[in-house]
Amino acid sequence: LKRIITLTTDFGAEDHYVGSMKGVILGINRNSVIVDITHNINNHNIFNAALNAQNFYKYFPNNSIHVVVVDPGVGSLRKPIAVQSEHGIFIGPDNGVFSLILEQDQKASVYEITNSEYMLDNVSNTFHGRDIFAPAAAHISLGIDIASIGMKVDSPIILNITKPVVNDDEIVGEVVYTDHFGNLTTNIPSNIIGNPREIHLDGYIIDTVAKSYQDVEIGKLLAIIGSSGFLEISVNQGRAADVIKSRKIIVKK
Amino acid sequence: LKRIITLTTDFGAEDHYVGSMKGVILGINRNSVIVDITHNINNHNIFNAALNAQNFYKYFPNNSIHVVVVDPGVGSLRKPIAVQSEHGIFIGPDNGVFSLILEQDQKASVYEITNSEYMLDNVSNTFHGRDIFAPAAAHISLGIDIASIGMKVDSPIILNITKPVVNDDEIVGEVVYTDHFGNLTTNIPSNIIGNPREIHLDGYIIDTVAKSYQDVEIGKLLAIIGSSGFLEISVNQGRAADVIKSRKIIVKK
Amino acid sequence: LKRIITLTTDFGAEDHYVGSMKGVILGINRNSVIVDITHNINNHNIFNAALNAQNFYKYFPNNSIHVVVVDPGVGSLRKPIAVQSEHGIFIGPDNGVFSLILEQDQKASVYEITNSEYMLDNVSNTFHGRDIFAPAAAHISLGIDIASIGMKVDSPIILNITKPVVNDDEIVGEVVYTDHFGNLTTNIPSNIIGNPREIHLDGYIIDTVAKSYQDVEIGKLLAIIGSSGFLEISVNQGRAADVIKSRKIIVKK
Repeated sequence: LKRIITLTTDFGAEDHYVGSMKGVILGINRNSVIVDITHNINNHNIFNAALNAQNFYKYFPNNSIHVVVVDPGVGSLRKPIAVQSEHGIFIGPDNGVFSLILEQDQKASVYEITNSEYMLDNVSNTFHGRDIFAPAAAHISLGIDIASIGMKVDSPIILNITKPVVNDDEIVGEVVYTDHFGNLTTNIPSNIIGNPREIHLDGYIIDTVAKSYQDVEIGKLLAIIGSSGFLEISVNQGRAADVIKSRKIIVKK
Repeated sequence: LKRIITLTTDFGAEDHYVGSMKGVILGINRNSVIVDITHNINNHNIFNAALNAQNFYKYFPNNSIHVVVVDPGVGSLRKPIAVQSEHGIFIGPDNGVFSLILEQDQKASVYEITNSEYMLDNVSNTFHGRDIFAPAAAHISLGIDIASIGMKVDSPIILNITKPVVNDDEIVGEVVYTDHFGNLTTNIPSNIIGNPREIHLDGYIIDTVAKSYQDVEIGKLLAIIGSSGFLEISVNQGRAADVIKSRKIIVKK
Repeated sequence: LKRIITLTTDFGAEDHYVGSMKGVILGINRNSVIVDITHNINNHNIFNAALNAQNFYKYFPNNSIHVVVVDPGVGSLRKPIAVQSEHGIFIGPDNGVFSLILEQDQKASVYEITNSEYMLDNVSNTFHGRDIFAPAAAHISLGIDIASIGMKVDSPIILNITKPVVNDDEIVGEVVYTDHFGNLTTNIPSNIIGNPREIHLDGYIIDTVAKSYQDVEIGKLLAIIGSSGFLEISVNQGRAADVIKSRKIIVKK
């Protein structure tokens, strides 16, 4: 079956790790379509993986399988899990990487991956991406019943992710992510912003939400609704991350 | 249809951006063959994107679709365009990224992408790669008539790219690109070089065009015809970019 | 044919080089399944390429074709070769990148790639990855007889790779590879380690082989059997490479 399997990890691009995972997947389902999301999640940064996972899955067909492996606890007792949500199947460690997925789909089912038929014969202590998660994804892509993979998990681990505080005259949020361009994504969704009077952060005041980076001069700070639907702080052709050092942001209504 | 869609951007490898573009493409045409060229064009460097685009398309079948997105003006009034050339279809912003393609194929047709049927339902202000260029490429890969995408553009933006000056006794060119190995590509094409007496740059004199890096000792500077057909300056097993700091190069005939 | 072709190079991710190789491959066999292993082998580091090649091929089907190009001698007299081993076909320069493959499969056949039918029409002096190795891989993926590619090579180049010294009371090995996480892979295979009394390196003593990174506190040094089956030195959620600066390691039995 020509099912999509995406890969999101902190494995980097220098070693053979991701390639070995792909070999395992293609050995089981040669027709799967493997898509790299990123392998440059900051090492061991579960929160960043959770944020990224929330942003891309909407752009994939609902029967896609998303493998997300940021796994400082590999080899310990943390569970390997498969999440069946309405927007796709998610596979990875039970350490919070799927927090935002599970929050958005309260009816999602979570299974512990325990069926050794769907693992490699020898499971290493350090590389479950290759030995457990990749083969699980590949077998699921062939259409096996996800419930055959293991028992249901009642309380998967959910990270405590800060929400913005909404008051009568202001919203107090924070910067949660810095991207490749140095753009700063906040936790303030576009639908609660309205038409703010001022935005305050790190001593700077921004007086409008721009429609385009070029609404301000090159090198100037701006606020804009980013592509993930949250308020972002940017610099036209520059790096906001080099200018803004604190994480708190206040939107004055 | 098993059409090739290549992607060249400055989006980097850390975020979900490229992955989201691939989700959009595969959601429209699951059989397309997506090939990453690079996502590490220097941020906002339209000239580098133009140079790279010129170099790879020749190695792809002529019905390939090449998406090139280096787009500091995203969300502003610059046009999204699709270029039908004899060597393939090129999709990206009308900001000069296709300068060399358009220069080489004067008969290419350029269309503004305005038909919202071929865009995502919600077009963000900051990510036209995902919302406009990816779906346009995917729809074109399914065989739609490219003219249905929008009106013809008469004068697409062409960068003013410096050509070498050819005199009776010398060619005066410049370094235009530095690659991963620190090799310096010049704007002097192999067919005008002949058998030069000397090559002068940054106080160094090179007295021959080598046939292989190993024609000189390890660590020594050399001139060679590079893989893109232009004169390059290299160091055997080293980085010419660490040695040569000026951009001017003179080939003495 | 839906044959897998993997790519391992030191070409980096900034330029069009890898993309051009993929264009060549897909132009010859549109149905091949191209898998990037890594393009970030340290520049010109044949030994690192040899180590990586040894680790991933086992996870691919045996009819896969593995292109490995770390090639400081490109354009010189070193031979381009294709290796037919029981675990797959390997294509690249005859400079030692296949040392460990050839050591493990003494019956492997090695052919010099000389048949110009299986090369691009114009072979550059600097980019045999695109002009020789990629088309050779693609033609082989279509099922040509590998012997038609050129004459047999009797003595391919084998690197002199250090093996650990095993004494009655200790094993003396060394660190041979540092990965993305700063984990240090040694040349000591798991099957000769047993249950060691102590592991000495760079003034540190580790007194057990851990089953998981989390067997020690965050920030602490540990020894573990790595995913490639060799002893590795790691720091729980940290970088062993930042702590351990010498390469010698002694396992006290």
